[in-house]
Amino acid sequence: MNTIKKITLIGSGNVASHLGKAFFDTGFIINEVYSKSIDNAKFLSKKLHSSATDSIRNLKSDSDVYIICIKDDSINYVVKEFLFFDKLIVHTSGSVAMEVLTQFQNYGIFYPLQTFSKEKNVMIAEVPLCIEASDKKSEQMLINLGKSLSKNVHLINSQQREKIHLAAVFACNFTNYMYTISEDILTQNNIDFDILKPLILETAKKINDNSPKAMQTGPAKRNDEVVMQHHINLLANNKDYQEIYQLITSNILGNSK
Amino acid sequence: MNTIKKITLIGSGNVASHLGKAFFDTGFIINEVYSKSIDNAKFLSKKLHSSATDSIRNLKSDSDVYIICIKDDSINYVVKEFLFFDKLIVHTSGSVAMEVLTQFQNYGIFYPLQTFSKEKNVMIAEVPLCIEASDKKSEQMLINLGKSLSKNVHLINSQQREKIHLAAVFACNFTNYMYTISEDILTQNNIDFDILKPLILETAKKINDNSPKAMQTGPAKRNDEVVMQHHINLLANNKDYQEIYQLITSNILGNSK
Repeated sequence: MNTIKKITLIGSGNVASHLGKAFFDTGFIINEVYSKSIDNAKFLSKKLHSSATDSIRNLKSDSDVYIICIKDDSINYVVKEFLFFDKLIVHTSGSVAMEVLTQFQNYGIFYPLQTFSKEKNVMIAEVPLCIEASDKKSEQMLINLGKSLSKNVHLINSQQREKIHLAAVFACNFTNYMYTISEDILTQNNIDFDILKPLILETAKKINDNSPKAMQTGPAKRNDEVVMQHHINLLANNKDYQEIYQLITSNILGNSK
Repeated sequence: MNTIKKITLIGSGNVASHLGKAFFDTGFIINEVYSKSIDNAKFLSKKLHSSATDSIRNLKSDSDVYIICIKDDSINYVVKEFLFFDKLIVHTSGSVAMEVLTQFQNYGIFYPLQTFSKEKNVMIAEVPLCIEASDKKSEQMLINLGKSLSKNVHLINSQQREKIHLAAVFACNFTNYMYTISEDILTQNNIDFDILKPLILETAKKINDNSPKAMQTGPAKRNDEVVMQHHINLLANNKDYQEIYQLITSNILGNSK
């Protein structure tokens, strides 16, 4: 059978919740939700009208695909316990190679390149889905599955995927940490963080049509030494922020190693 | 007179162009545009149906406000040359104290907290405008001027403004540099930067309703040592990026000084 109808979700966290909801809303049957915590499994399975389990060995055998959406370092545990060697099994991690699944007959990757949070809906139709598979038939099944959710489906091999994941750490996780520092500076000075939000959104939107390299602005870009020195002085009470300021400034200035 | 109708723009760069267009579109008269390059002054003045000059000493004297929109380190030059001591004069810098204008009778700050680029329109109605003034009458004139452009007008003193500007360097300039690194990593591996854009936009949107501190995700947040070490290895050919990765990761991990 080339078409996926029934899905088992192995995991109940943010990725499982968002993918599960997207599949369910698109008309797929969520057959079962696994979590090592049966309460977590039940919490998600209720919303997805599926059954719940806390045992990999006792998973129902009649799903068309088993999607692992758990922390990277728990994938090996699932691989050890999973008994349906002839079933299509995929994981959703950005940094784990596909080879971790080679003991199975048909396997692959279904990596959604997005940041998922509990209380924030995501437009799944825009989310890039990175697909890789052990064989052409599984690849086509996963592409079809991806296209049923998103307009943004890509064939990406494991070497590319780990580079994308690394780039995403800078573009998402580190960017969010820059937001955190800016909020901290404002809060310490009794200024509402809201005042920065239009700037943050515009900074993200600007690169939609332009390379970020061409969009760089600020004191380091225009080599404004007075402002840079003043900022470093203002950060004297926080050596961590000061060090980050100096390092990134030095890089923008082009003082590379 | 309490109402501003005629405006002189001292400067012809991104801030002058965007503010000038916004004023013009709102019905203000742009009386004159100054630039040290007469060609640049003329280029902008044409769009704003105003005259142009390259001499501060020969500025027309009949404007209601003179808005300095030039590089921080050129403000002192304008202050030295400007002869209308009884006119309202303001600057638009995030980091220069209002006191630079004390030799005039009525002065202030009109600081738009946004990143302006040549080829990108900005929704001026959303841009926070930070106002400060030497006296209540000038303050009210600048507030009225601000409110005619934006829904987002704030009274901000010079001490707060320099903190906002510092926070903006992290939230905008350094964030954009994170985007630049991510683009570089992808380009080096022949992957289109477009694949990261939905993630970048979502990361910025997430903090609209949530503190970025609560939204932090990624390998450092979940202390995934295998992934972090692998990323550091992947960056072996770029010591700058490796150093940035290590420093920010260490901060997210909470290994502060």
